[in-house]
Amino acid sequence: MMRIDFVSLFPSMFFGPFDDSIIRRARDNGILDIHILNPRDFAFDRHKHVDDSPFGGGSGMLLKPEPMFRALRFLLGTTNFQRRRILLMSPDGEVLSQDKAKELSAFDQLIFLCGHYEGFDARITELADEVLSIGDYVLTGGELPAMVMVDAVARMLPGVLGSEESAPTDSFYHGLLEYPQYTRPRDYHGKVVPEVLFSGDHAKIALWRRHESLRLTFERRPDLLEKAELTEDDLVFLKQLEQTRKGGQ
Amino acid sequence: MMRIDFVSLFPSMFFGPFDDSIIRRARDNGILDIHILNPRDFAFDRHKHVDDSPFGGGSGMLLKPEPMFRALRFLLGTTNFQRRRILLMSPDGEVLSQDKAKELSAFDQLIFLCGHYEGFDARITELADEVLSIGDYVLTGGELPAMVMVDAVARMLPGVLGSEESAPTDSFYHGLLEYPQYTRPRDYHGKVVPEVLFSGDHAKIALWRRHESLRLTFERRPDLLEKAELTEDDLVFLKQLEQTRKGGQ
Repeated sequence: MMRIDFVSLFPSMFFGPFDDSIIRRARDNGILDIHILNPRDFAFDRHKHVDDSPFGGGSGMLLKPEPMFRALRFLLGTTNFQRRRILLMSPDGEVLSQDKAKELSAFDQLIFLCGHYEGFDARITELADEVLSIGDYVLTGGELPAMVMVDAVARMLPGVLGSEESAPTDSFYHGLLEYPQYTRPRDYHGKVVPEVLFSGDHAKIALWRRHESLRLTFERRPDLLEKAELTEDDLVFLKQLEQTRKGGQ
Repeated sequence: MMRIDFVSLFPSMFFGPFDDSIIRRARDNGILDIHILNPRDFAFDRHKHVDDSPFGGGSGMLLKPEPMFRALRFLLGTTNFQRRRILLMSPDGEVLSQDKAKELSAFDQLIFLCGHYEGFDARITELADEVLSIGDYVLTGGELPAMVMVDAVARMLPGVLGSEESAPTDSFYHGLLEYPQYTRPRDYHGKVVPEVLFSGDHAKIALWRRHESLRLTFERRPDLLEKAELTEDDLVFLKQLEQTRKGGQ
């Protein structure tokens, strides 16, 4: 069982994504335990203010430190997990990777502090063990990034993906993009499935798939090839691709 | 007004994230028009099957081509926008950047085809103008990535961020991470706001913020400095940071 806590000013944002699909199933099966805490409930002034204008001038309002500090203190006082990680969602953070998701899947509790879309007081950063981002783009808040991380982490927990599903063969597990897959019908309005898949020759199919993985990665994401685990055969095939491309120019 | 269509097997996943926060406000203000279409409604067999096992062997089930082709054909037949873009969500796609989000914000209609978490028939790829990803990690489906993209795109549409908010000064707009910001209280349990912000000297504050942006980027994301727009002063400051680091080692 992994416990997930979201600390967010917009709790209702979390209602849809985790109430359907395999995350719902993981919750029903007792693999994931999801909780949401609203820092606004820890703003003790009469109007429950959670933000204020920035010192030194500038547009926008910032999330004040107190509600977030108090919400986290409450959470740490009411839960007790050995392996716990506090994560702050911010575009300034380390960018999520498959390796990072794997690393996070080993914790018993993940606490996600979701930043305000207008910005937050920098002292809030001190609360977190890590500052994480999902990519180099700006979003209205940390809620969607936190959900993305939970999704990436959850699917690696034992029992979340059914036996019929396929975590280990997914893209990025071997550092390459996934080969194309096909199902019925064999011919869909003239778009036909590659012949090799009907050969019954498993070694030949495996080789075709490996080559298609290499080809796709070479064409779309050559940067991934630098870190991928490649065999001698892979390197020879890549050399051929390179020469075909040069010949075509 | 921008029209957004999600084609997804899990329509209820979209209910929370767009019913709160500034995306809700953008919808209420007639800036965003969000629709959801379920490919299952276009599976015409008795059991409404949308997936089938892969040709050539392998675990997992794949999204069949027919329901997705038919759903998109229906959508294209019932909507008529000049600048329209069909996007397929897949970890194999081009990774979203701030520039790509800006580019997408110029369209009148964005159609997001959300992949199945177990994989999809490769012919579905042909339906899309572009294959996009939000990062190098695997998720259970294309729904959260599609929401992330809509969030990144929507906040750049005129009128979505209020005048008090601050899109142009955000991280990545100038290719650097954002400087730290502070609000009341000036002293929170001994954690104090930097003095310079109370100096009243706007030029000095602006310089401090620029330097902090450079420092954060230098420490956390030096890769961003290669593409950032830097002045002569910036380069001198970075040189100093480099030498301080060398001196400290």
